[in-house]
Amino acid sequence: MIEPRRLRVALLGAGAVGSQVARLLLAHADELADRAGAPLDLVGIAVRDVDAPREADLPRELYTTDADTLIAGADIVIEVTGGLEPARTRILHALASGADVVTANKALLATHGSEIFDAADQVGATVAYEAAVAGAIPIIRPLRDSLAGDRVRRIMGIVNGTTNYILDRMDREGLGFDEVLAEAQRLGYAEADPTADVEAYDAAQKAAILASLAFHTSVPLDAVHREGITSVDAGVIEAARKAGYVVKLLAVCERLVDQPDAAPTGEAISVRVYPALVPREHPLASVHGANNAVFVEAEAAGDLMFYGAGAGGVQTASAVLGDVVSAARRHVAGGPGVGESTRANLPIVPIGRIRTSCQVTLEVDDKPGVLATVAGILSDGNVSIATVEQTTSGDAVARESGDAVAHLVIGTHTAREQDLADTVERLAATSAVRRVVSVLRVEGD
Amino acid sequence: MIEPRRLRVALLGAGAVGSQVARLLLAHADELADRAGAPLDLVGIAVRDVDAPREADLPRELYTTDADTLIAGADIVIEVTGGLEPARTRILHALASGADVVTANKALLATHGSEIFDAADQVGATVAYEAAVAGAIPIIRPLRDSLAGDRVRRIMGIVNGTTNYILDRMDREGLGFDEVLAEAQRLGYAEADPTADVEAYDAAQKAAILASLAFHTSVPLDAVHREGITSVDAGVIEAARKAGYVVKLLAVCERLVDQPDAAPTGEAISVRVYPALVPREHPLASVHGANNAVFVEAEAAGDLMFYGAGAGGVQTASAVLGDVVSAARRHVAGGPGVGESTRANLPIVPIGRIRTSCQVTLEVDDKPGVLATVAGILSDGNVSIATVEQTTSGDAVARESGDAVAHLVIGTHTAREQDLADTVERLAATSAVRRVVSVLRVEGD
Repeated sequence: MIEPRRLRVALLGAGAVGSQVARLLLAHADELADRAGAPLDLVGIAVRDVDAPREADLPRELYTTDADTLIAGADIVIEVTGGLEPARTRILHALASGADVVTANKALLATHGSEIFDAADQVGATVAYEAAVAGAIPIIRPLRDSLAGDRVRRIMGIVNGTTNYILDRMDREGLGFDEVLAEAQRLGYAEADPTADVEAYDAAQKAAILASLAFHTSVPLDAVHREGITSVDAGVIEAARKAGYVVKLLAVCERLVDQPDAAPTGEAISVRVYPALVPREHPLASVHGANNAVFVEAEAAGDLMFYGAGAGGVQTASAVLGDVVSAARRHVAGGPGVGESTRANLPIVPIGRIRTSCQVTLEVDDKPGVLATVAGILSDGNVSIATVEQTTSGDAVARESGDAVAHLVIGTHTAREQDLADTVERLAATSAVRRVVSVLRVEGD
Repeated sequence: MIEPRRLRVALLGAGAVGSQVARLLLAHADELADRAGAPLDLVGIAVRDVDAPREADLPRELYTTDADTLIAGADIVIEVTGGLEPARTRILHALASGADVVTANKALLATHGSEIFDAADQVGATVAYEAAVAGAIPIIRPLRDSLAGDRVRRIMGIVNGTTNYILDRMDREGLGFDEVLAEAQRLGYAEADPTADVEAYDAAQKAAILASLAFHTSVPLDAVHREGITSVDAGVIEAARKAGYVVKLLAVCERLVDQPDAAPTGEAISVRVYPALVPREHPLASVHGANNAVFVEAEAAGDLMFYGAGAGGVQTASAVLGDVVSAARRHVAGGPGVGESTRANLPIVPIGRIRTSCQVTLEVDDKPGVLATVAGILSDGNVSIATVEQTTSGDAVARESGDAVAHLVIGTHTAREQDLADTVERLAATSAVRRVVSVLRVEGD
């Protein structure tokens, strides 16, 4: 029997994910060899400082600061360092030297994806990135392979564990945003600087990656409309609950049809990230804690959902290893890798031109004529009202004195986002409207 | 540029799934060619009667009764006829002639899987079967590829849409089994002869396939412990609800450790299908209607869930086409297919020797000493009680006359199944116990 070729695996990075990848590669060497069709030799781990203290107990001699030499001699390069540079340069180097690449680097793919996938195409190599979106949850491979004979209509993803943890705690315990954020930071669910999570930069990167893959279109990060969750307060959550919704930060990737400007097919896409109202009976509504889930509506397959842990070193390492095994099989079998397709290259519609339905919550003077004024502004703005609920907090005395406040919760039919934005601006400028409390889109209805 | 080789695709069967596969192959030919790396030519559809009336409007000349000639000239053979023969012979024929095979035939794989996978291995071909388990939901590929670097501990699957529809309706509407079954038959969710579904033969086949794949072990169908849902009546569902559970027909595939008889690793597996109590907050509890879901607990990835439509012609066709695209890519790239691994070949532990926790509901005489008797029998049988709830329906007069009935709902700690079975038998033979209403395992706690 011919001894199968051994594959040389180089690991870039030894942080929370990298150390787990290394541990699993060594601990499960026999099983991995069996599944990959060849033994996988971890030949080195590139780090900045060989002597830094590390969690995992790995052989000292694996560490090296010479990433270039390590990459040059590898069949498979695993990049789990994060950040744009030197990750980008190193991945391009690995591809140029004939290695397949496995990466968990969402920021890099969302920013330089086209360049990297083009480079891989040139040499017929694979860039696998299951770990870049939704941690351990298999979503990249199902979208690329399982649904290869289908057409994706829409993706709604809870792809950021930190914000889901925060919104879920607020919903379940009735707590305020700041309180829960502080708790999440204490527990390690949120960073000391939570901007990337709570302002939805992280979710936007994942949305760009998912949309690119699902719609065969290169989606640059700045084409993703992004709104964070910092304006979602306890009152908004409470009002959502009463109306039968839960607030989730959603990455929405949508195929639009009958777009007048999108010749020749009339198809275009919208990619957006914002806090949205999800009906309580929707499968995404029961995604609790720091979990992630990606809900996919496909033409033939119907509705699918993929659920699991969105982060964590060992969970993410599981996704990395699945990719390593696939890359190894390809290396053994030969033949080109599966390239990224930008065949469709659908136009990306700016947020102002898509249609959504919303729930607008206003704090208004509790006096006669206010509802008529508000309804008139909506009607003038081409925003049609589906439901209205008014609650009054003031008593008769307050009402007499003109100090009474009422809350108006207005559900709209689908309207053009630009019309909605203009209308909300006009509402905010109306004297009877004290405050626009929130404007939340409804998704998954 | 070199014209890529065209691939010849033969379709066996033109029923609900087959007609949708053919329709999608023709309608999306360009997209499929792009994704597969070669144009896919549907060269023929083997049917029993060329002139039979059919739903789909496909070119007449595609139909043929000569399956053998069709298969002999094909690169990829899609088998969606169902049943054991002639499906088995035709698939073996296809593999022997060098074709890759895509099948949705769960009964065949659960019964003759080893023979078919061995035949594929011999020639380095692929047998892909995403559509055989849980319809459109990508579960085979995630288990085989995405989790290739991980280890599955446990799978809990709702893999039969008919029974989930029935149990869900009973739970949500408080209806009885017979009533809901009749309704399901009217709506086409259940067959005129519902045996395969309600007696869990269908779920058992899927359990065998999932366990074989997840544990790298050939699991024969008769090693799957099987109990149907016909004894689950409205009272059982109601009692489950009160206790915070929902009743689901679960396929459970479990890796057991520290098994004394399982040298050298101490590892073994259990594969079983039965109605079980699932806590209401478990993700599987919110799988409604005829949907399917597969919950996977993996060592590194943690908990994952895959959710979607479990059946339906076009949904299943989506899964078939994903497999066709992968098979086509392999055909274009060359190299061997991914074989089935039975490397681990773990022993399969009979149901009597595994440990579960249960809820036992008894109808007993409402008189002094009965609880003590019951508790004594449980204790003698090595079944330790975790919770007891007694409800009395009789009034004082009935109690005086000895006619009063009480219900005892006993939750056990984990116990050996054989001990539990023996104990339930002793309870049933006790004069104070009028009836053993139900014995349901608790899963997902």
